[in-house]
Amino acid sequence: MANQTTQMNMNMHMGPWKITVYDQEYYQGRWWEFTSCCKNIMEYGMENIRSLKVECGAWVGFEHSSYNGQQFVLEKGDYPCFEAYMGSHGYRVERMMSFRPVYSACHKESRMCVWECENMMGRQWELCDDYPSLQAMGWHNNEIGSMRVQSGAWVCYQYPGYRGYQYIMECDCHGGEYRCYREFGTHAHTPQIQSIRRIQH
Amino acid sequence: MANQTTQMNMNMHMGPWKITVYDQEYYQGRWWEFTSCCKNIMEYGMENIRSLKVECGAWVGFEHSSYNGQQFVLEKGDYPCFEAYMGSHGYRVERMMSFRPVYSACHKESRMCVWECENMMGRQWELCDDYPSLQAMGWHNNEIGSMRVQSGAWVCYQYPGYRGYQYIMECDCHGGEYRCYREFGTHAHTPQIQSIRRIQH
Repeated sequence: MANQTTQMNMNMHMGPWKITVYDQEYYQGRWWEFTSCCKNIMEYGMENIRSLKVECGAWVGFEHSSYNGQQFVLEKGDYPCFEAYMGSHGYRVERMMSFRPVYSACHKESRMCVWECENMMGRQWELCDDYPSLQAMGWHNNEIGSMRVQSGAWVCYQYPGYRGYQYIMECDCHGGEYRCYREFGTHAHTPQIQSIRRIQH
Repeated sequence: MANQTTQMNMNMHMGPWKITVYDQEYYQGRWWEFTSCCKNIMEYGMENIRSLKVECGAWVGFEHSSYNGQQFVLEKGDYPCFEAYMGSHGYRVERMMSFRPVYSACHKESRMCVWECENMMGRQWELCDDYPSLQAMGWHNNEIGSMRVQSGAWVCYQYPGYRGYQYIMECDCHGGEYRCYREFGTHAHTPQIQSIRRIQH
């Protein structure tokens, strides 16, 4: 276990992000390696991403080009097919056209505040851990009106147990402020959020 | 926050489990409340479960009757449709025919050991936290050969970020021992596991 911890700390500080994307399932077909943002995968001659490997850092993938549409958090590991990187959604997304590193992902300390109503109004709760069920931890309903990320990066999910729509929230975006559900993401159409966790390298 | 913590501790010790299941989406149609196991929902005149609310405790749902097939961890919260309780799978499960409480879910201390090979052989790693990416934390590949749950209950996922097939592992089942991937669950057909987390009340 001592060895594993050493390994873990090395990974945290290794700096450069690295992702390899493929246009066929199971790491077949055309492929590209990236160490920073990709605004539109079509500029690299790919029509879609059907499998990928995250080798370093945490990333966020987007359904559409220019970082629009549904969001998917991508942490180190192997994603052999669509099902591996998308969540469980009402309509099944089978595209990922742009992606970028999550620069503010942080091991040391992640803090955010959530409020019952829009514009940081109503009941308030400070988060500093992972919460697979907000209601189990004492939150009173299945919605969050607004939030502010003080440090680190977080992913919020529509349903308990880290399921459904994902919203990636970062202290470096919007000044960390998300004043109503329409600011959660371009795909947000409800304030329903039932699980939240930190994104760590 | 002090109030929230008090609330949280109360919930932990409230004892009885409670789930309400409905045969239509968005909590419509025929419904039943349960406080313990349900081996076959058809015995209650329901052909399927299309929405549910977990009001107390952590539960595990199964695709087939008699606790067989794909497994879904169900924590406190609202699940208005199939997409809310199933994961993201290669073949889309749209049934839940049996379910039971996770009795060994534990807030205080959860510990398990994973091994590289079957029968507790090869490299070993002790877990006591949530791991959205095992590889990011130092595990060397995307598979786990065997495991032993010392305390609490855990859910293991096929892909990083708590996606894909779920395997619920408990210290009270099999004596907490899972000696090869075929013992992970009746639906397991690969040793691929890339994220693991504790189940807590």
